[in-house]
Amino acid sequence: MVMTTPRRTDASNGDAPVAPYQRKVYVPGSRPDVRVPMREVVLSPTPATHGAEPNAPVRLYDTSGPYTDPAVTTDVRQGLPQLRAHWIRERGDVEEVPGKRALRAKPGRAVTQLHYARRGEITPEMEFIALREGVEPELVRDEVARGRAIIPSNVNHPETEPMIIGRRFLVKINANIGNSAVASSIDEEVEKMTWATRWGADTVMDLSTGKNIHQTREWIIRNSPVPIGTVPIYQALEKVGGSASDLTWEIYRDTLVEQAEQGVDYFTIHAGVRLAFIPLTAKRVTGIVSRGGSIMAAWCLAHHEENFLYTRFEDICEIMRAYDIAFSLGDGLRPGSIADANDEAQFGELDTLGELTTVAWKRDVQVMIEGPGHVPMHKIKENMDRQLDVCHEAPFYTLGPLTTDVAPGYDHITSAIGAAMIGWYGTAMLCYVTPKEHLGLPDKDDVRDGVITYKIAAHAADLAKGHPAAQAWDDALSKARFEFRWRDQFALSLDPETAGAMHDETLPAEGAKVAHFCSMCGPKFCSMRITQDVREYAKAHGIDAEAAVKVGLEEKAVEFREGGGAIYRKA
Amino acid sequence: MVMTTPRRTDASNGDAPVAPYQRKVYVPGSRPDVRVPMREVVLSPTPATHGAEPNAPVRLYDTSGPYTDPAVTTDVRQGLPQLRAHWIRERGDVEEVPGKRALRAKPGRAVTQLHYARRGEITPEMEFIALREGVEPELVRDEVARGRAIIPSNVNHPETEPMIIGRRFLVKINANIGNSAVASSIDEEVEKMTWATRWGADTVMDLSTGKNIHQTREWIIRNSPVPIGTVPIYQALEKVGGSASDLTWEIYRDTLVEQAEQGVDYFTIHAGVRLAFIPLTAKRVTGIVSRGGSIMAAWCLAHHEENFLYTRFEDICEIMRAYDIAFSLGDGLRPGSIADANDEAQFGELDTLGELTTVAWKRDVQVMIEGPGHVPMHKIKENMDRQLDVCHEAPFYTLGPLTTDVAPGYDHITSAIGAAMIGWYGTAMLCYVTPKEHLGLPDKDDVRDGVITYKIAAHAADLAKGHPAAQAWDDALSKARFEFRWRDQFALSLDPETAGAMHDETLPAEGAKVAHFCSMCGPKFCSMRITQDVREYAKAHGIDAEAAVKVGLEEKAVEFREGGGAIYRKA
Repeated sequence: MVMTTPRRTDASNGDAPVAPYQRKVYVPGSRPDVRVPMREVVLSPTPATHGAEPNAPVRLYDTSGPYTDPAVTTDVRQGLPQLRAHWIRERGDVEEVPGKRALRAKPGRAVTQLHYARRGEITPEMEFIALREGVEPELVRDEVARGRAIIPSNVNHPETEPMIIGRRFLVKINANIGNSAVASSIDEEVEKMTWATRWGADTVMDLSTGKNIHQTREWIIRNSPVPIGTVPIYQALEKVGGSASDLTWEIYRDTLVEQAEQGVDYFTIHAGVRLAFIPLTAKRVTGIVSRGGSIMAAWCLAHHEENFLYTRFEDICEIMRAYDIAFSLGDGLRPGSIADANDEAQFGELDTLGELTTVAWKRDVQVMIEGPGHVPMHKIKENMDRQLDVCHEAPFYTLGPLTTDVAPGYDHITSAIGAAMIGWYGTAMLCYVTPKEHLGLPDKDDVRDGVITYKIAAHAADLAKGHPAAQAWDDALSKARFEFRWRDQFALSLDPETAGAMHDETLPAEGAKVAHFCSMCGPKFCSMRITQDVREYAKAHGIDAEAAVKVGLEEKAVEFREGGGAIYRKA
Repeated sequence: MVMTTPRRTDASNGDAPVAPYQRKVYVPGSRPDVRVPMREVVLSPTPATHGAEPNAPVRLYDTSGPYTDPAVTTDVRQGLPQLRAHWIRERGDVEEVPGKRALRAKPGRAVTQLHYARRGEITPEMEFIALREGVEPELVRDEVARGRAIIPSNVNHPETEPMIIGRRFLVKINANIGNSAVASSIDEEVEKMTWATRWGADTVMDLSTGKNIHQTREWIIRNSPVPIGTVPIYQALEKVGGSASDLTWEIYRDTLVEQAEQGVDYFTIHAGVRLAFIPLTAKRVTGIVSRGGSIMAAWCLAHHEENFLYTRFEDICEIMRAYDIAFSLGDGLRPGSIADANDEAQFGELDTLGELTTVAWKRDVQVMIEGPGHVPMHKIKENMDRQLDVCHEAPFYTLGPLTTDVAPGYDHITSAIGAAMIGWYGTAMLCYVTPKEHLGLPDKDDVRDGVITYKIAAHAADLAKGHPAAQAWDDALSKARFEFRWRDQFALSLDPETAGAMHDETLPAEGAKVAHFCSMCGPKFCSMRITQDVREYAKAHGIDAEAAVKVGLEEKAVEFREGGGAIYRKA
């Protein structure tokens, strides 16, 4: 979420309130079916004590989809409206898969956004994104064409509202959901998806490994306004009864096609877990911690053969380009502890992912690269610098990284530190970590905590990168804080409900929300009130900031001379 | 908290269990009354599947005081045992204040740790700290003598277990407690103090501003095993009925003496809020946000005079040196929003704090410098670099900094990002921020969340600074994780109760705590199990890590040649 420059608003259903002080609005594009949703926060005027001025509404990036539009009726059984269906069809390069309700490229065609971008075309998806990000469409096209950004957009997932992952754009976050053999149900997972996007998840990965993988995924995709990622090896492994050594290329290939036809937007593929790197993990404190990485390692060892995801990589590219599925090249050998960070296994795999990026790009397939994991602060920058170098600036997508191992139960925080830093350094998307990491499956509260924590990390990175709209959002909230516009403060915050509830714990009365002090300091110690006096003083005495500096410096200079040049002069 | 090298243990009450898998032990020094408490975590042996080896107990830095020693009976009405009473008396440089139960320096004497350090003396306090930090006593003395570290240790607070604040030592954290006119009671505040130190607070600041300030402070000090800091201007303001313009030097001076005699270990003094800097804040988004800063600004404006804390600074030094109270030179003009970070007002004040540091050092008074506040990531390092430069390497003590303003309710997280980074850059102590920041007064849960979050930031900084004992702690926990020693994982974590409870939510059965898988992946997808197979494979095939790299590189070289020199060869 970030503030963007207000533009004229599509009036059709723009005025319906989403929540008090907020409403869903749409920014129109060059054609009627390009309408970009925004969360508009309506602000109160500055009170008379602080200068009585109007405060312009603030528009925030909105990932919540049609669910927060009161003019749209959604039904989980029907799925979302197919926003992109016409855009996909009108390009004339797809055909229906015989006997299925799915599309794929006509023979020999590439239907990827990378392909269109390279031939100079600004697609409706790119225009939508330009409006969403507040940038020129040509920047979107150019970054995609160079491989520095991706637009995950399977032709079989027309329900998505287009979004971009690249370091010239807002930093994005991913939320993982998915059941395992031990816990969770389909309904819960669909609800977690809508819940995660409500709080700001830009993409969602379905990491289900238990029963009903296909069915769970179908429900999630049909109801998701954001791109969906998966790790197809999980389902392939289920098909062979959980025995890694029984995996075959054919079973895996069929799984890719099955998921491609459902509409998965990006696949995590652990093609860099090469046979030669595996023994490098033997002396690690925590070995291989990636599930996909360990499955492939088990297969390689069982067969004494090179990873088939590596040897069949060009075949995989053929599938990806026929549906526009992006690679998320998996870091199967990422470190699982501070001790194992930045070791030979990890960087060996990263080099391989760089090689594979080039191969995918030759086939017009979009690529991002997955990164660690557990990394102490002083080793984070090396990860980013190497990735940019060896992966030719393909977007980086990291899990955290966690900056210490000693706080299970708080790994959303240990990892937000690393995520904010690596986001600042150039990572394009941050995979969230919930408080349950290492301990159990996240419930709804954990999902919200993980998403909000990662919105903080991503936004802190946007600020540090100097994003002007990001700064404007902070300024609007801080101005509201200074002027005791409590309701505006809550409405502008990442989690208005929690902020409001915490305030009310100490000062529950409705009147306290318009009071010019709060429970931290009480009325006597209110620094905000005193600052107002300072402003009035400065105004009354005709002292502007510049003059004051001058006065201050001159005064100090005199003091210095009078004191015989000593640094300190007793007054 | 951090792991230190195990030493022989004082047996007297070292074997009593503090909690299952943990016990309080004491590391003895050169004299019987130097005994340094540690939290010792007893670990299970590695299971047979993973190599069957014993795991040495891990000793962690312990701030919890006698409360966690089952051999000590504590009574809030009696206060804690006076650990340092004899050390203070035996130096022969203090006398009793006539008619009071308080000590002060004999006329003309300095009783500060800085004074002793400069004359080459290693005090029992310094020896205690050396054992606690796992360093040589001479390092402690030398850093204190240079002003690069402080030992807050009022002669009237003999209950403290000595600790040090300096960037060559473990990064420390402070927890703020204190009632305001609106909420909280004395009992609650004392309980918050013991609660905060139980979770790892290294110092506690009592920021009470309401009724019964004196009484609240008395209870807190008598029961605190960690140094206590205050902001004396708060009580002085109460004495003049809350009207800043009625403050006088005499009232303030008497307040300093009153608190000095009670045993406050460091005073926040906003002596850098000079008249000339005040108008510089008029154009800020959030003006002056420090309570103490705004009180002094109000006084300066009302009188059109220079801040009396600045003009009377040498008089204040005289009081500080007579009790060994450290200055915490307050940043009254710190930024209260991202927009205001690193501005002229902030850095003007910092320059003044540097001048005042020199003055205090001339009087043998210990000094640390307070820092911001709200600062975006890319502006954090400049704060540290400037502080080291203009304040002559006096320890830096920062509040966060918060890296964005948009997440009220989550400011422990927005600020932990900045705190970890500035700790890595060299800040010696981090003042915690709780989830209630900007919204209300923290309750017990907020205090725990704030403390744990800041232990994470401090420990992440210790790791990034390359502290060997910090790394060993992470390694011990990660090894336990890899070997499915769940109970050891919980016991080694910053918050064992939360970690254990989260695990049990999904797998509550007692047997699950010895199971070789967990609820995240289930047994089939267990990457830890597969890693064990890798180790066995590597062992069986005689492949050690080095050989594997060689094999890997040779294989790649052959491929490259066979592929005609192209980066990628289709297998």
